Amino acid sequence: MIVLGLDPGTRRFGWGVVAKRGSRLVHIAHGVVALGDGPLAPRLAVLETALDEVVRTHQPDQASAESIFFHRDPQAASKLGHARGVALMVCGRAEVEVFEYAPARVKRTVAAHGRADKAQVAQMIRVILSLAVAPPSDAADALALAVTHLQNSNVRAR
Amino acid sequence: MIVLGLDPGTRRFGWGVVAKRGSRLVHIAHGVVALGDGPLAPRLAVLETALDEVVRTHQPDQASAESIFFHRDPQAASKLGHARGVALMVCGRAEVEVFEYAPARVKRTVAAHGRADKAQVAQMIRVILSLAVAPPSDAADALALAVTHLQNSNVRAR
Repeated sequence: MIVLGLDPGTRRFGWGVVAKRGSRLVHIAHGVVALGDGPLAPRLAVLETALDEVVRTHQPDQASAESIFFHRDPQAASKLGHARGVALMVCGRAEVEVFEYAPARVKRTVAAHGRADKAQVAQMIRVILSLAVAPPSDAADALALAVTHLQNSNVRAR
Repeated sequence: MIVLGLDPGTRRFGWGVVAKRGSRLVHIAHGVVALGDGPLAPRLAVLETALDEVVRTHQPDQASAESIFFHRDPQAASKLGHARGVALMVCGRAEVEVFEYAPARVKRTVAAHGRADKAQVAQMIRVILSLAVAPPSDAADALALAVTHLQNSNVRAR
């Protein structure tokens, strides 16, 4: 089972791929797509190309994305929605089913409590996936989403 | 000058293509992509395929989309953002620059006041573009966006 974690952002979009082999979690790859500034349309096209490459390279079985419906600011929710929409489209096109998790649940899964900060999440991901160094925080969040899905998919089929 | 108007929705996504020949507005085509229910990722993949076909068929020079940052509901803003993000990505990939207009400005342009309802917009679009019947409202809104951009691009280059 290979899971692609997605941490949407309009400037930096984090992704991470984790596999489960038996009961063992194995780090496959991670990265951050830097989208820069300027008009949104060409930035989203860059994002599509990058994520499509990730999906074709690592052939995930399922994807795990942060649920973003908790944002209180409509403008931030809309902008994040743009990037997240492109990511979901790339997954949908490749027939990769997408699951979603609230940020607090991800933090509880990897860091044992729901209010862990980004640095704590990155450190826990480093330990859980036996990495030499902690990944950049956007990629760490994406890896944490993949880990959360793999841990929870033990418990119930969706 | 050929402009693609985009009226984002997660269930029904309206589009319309209008050309300007001299000072005359010419209706080229319009449609509504019905996305149905179910998981968002495959629906967004359907949207991408449909809009990509529209762009390849009609080769717009520019696109015109409703600005959606006025939504007060973050959840609605996020969902609309997903569909709008895919549309902007399709435009960005085809190097079609996207302009955006607030709903009230579109209504003022086609219906002379900012609080016209959907039926009034559709009727005015029918008249402006010399159509035999009024288009369905999602497509009419998209055509109105294209008309708004063509009328305003007379005044100032962007």
